[in-house]
Amino acid sequence: MVSLDFDKTGGLIPAIAQDYATGDVLMLAYMNQKAWEATLNTGQATYYSRSRQKLWIKGESSGHQQRVKEIWIDCDNDTVLLKVEQLGGAACHTGYRSCFFRQVTDGQVRSVGQPVFNPEEVYKK
Amino acid sequence: MVSLDFDKTGGLIPAIAQDYATGDVLMLAYMNQKAWEATLNTGQATYYSRSRQKLWIKGESSGHQQRVKEIWIDCDNDTVLLKVEQLGGAACHTGYRSCFFRQVTDGQVRSVGQPVFNPEEVYKK
Repeated sequence: MVSLDFDKTGGLIPAIAQDYATGDVLMLAYMNQKAWEATLNTGQATYYSRSRQKLWIKGESSGHQQRVKEIWIDCDNDTVLLKVEQLGGAACHTGYRSCFFRQVTDGQVRSVGQPVFNPEEVYKK
Repeated sequence: MVSLDFDKTGGLIPAIAQDYATGDVLMLAYMNQKAWEATLNTGQATYYSRSRQKLWIKGESSGHQQRVKEIWIDCDNDTVLLKVEQLGGAACHTGYRSCFFRQVTDGQVRSVGQPVFNPEEVYKK
């Protein structure tokens, strides 16, 4: 098992998901040791949800899983970069392809592009 | 000034630097409010160094600044994505182009590619 430096940041390290085919940065989430191990063992991007305080298999609610194609770690052993195949065409719970759909220009924020899916249809209660 | 949610994470939020031209993810660092404002105001990627506990204009020691081409924020207002022009050809203090130069495959870590510069020559004491 490849060891990451979870201690430096209180047990959670950031993980960037990047689209394997296009290079788009899709999202940033966090991993604890169990999420890291699950990602390595299953090939499915697995994070730790800070809001729900539990392991979070990406796409478990929406069906929009991330199949891990490549795993990279940084020079300090405290950040992960996953290159993934994003199922369902979108990573963001808002329905946008990437969580980074808002651009800051001249002090203003604007959304760029259109959602790929309707969250109300995907996240049925 | 565009407001980010610094409170959620104790004053620091992660910032991803991505090469504007190639799409390579170069590094992840952290910003506090002052670093965010400095980045917006100067167009130079500015972070907060957790180890040195001070504002860190990227490249201030190495000369390898990052000129900010685009600024994106995520759906939760707690992560920044900078698309940058990386001066000097490398973002990592090890001399590699990206801090993510180590790939994890079958439980093994291996460095991929070659350093662009020699850190001993760039970081003269």
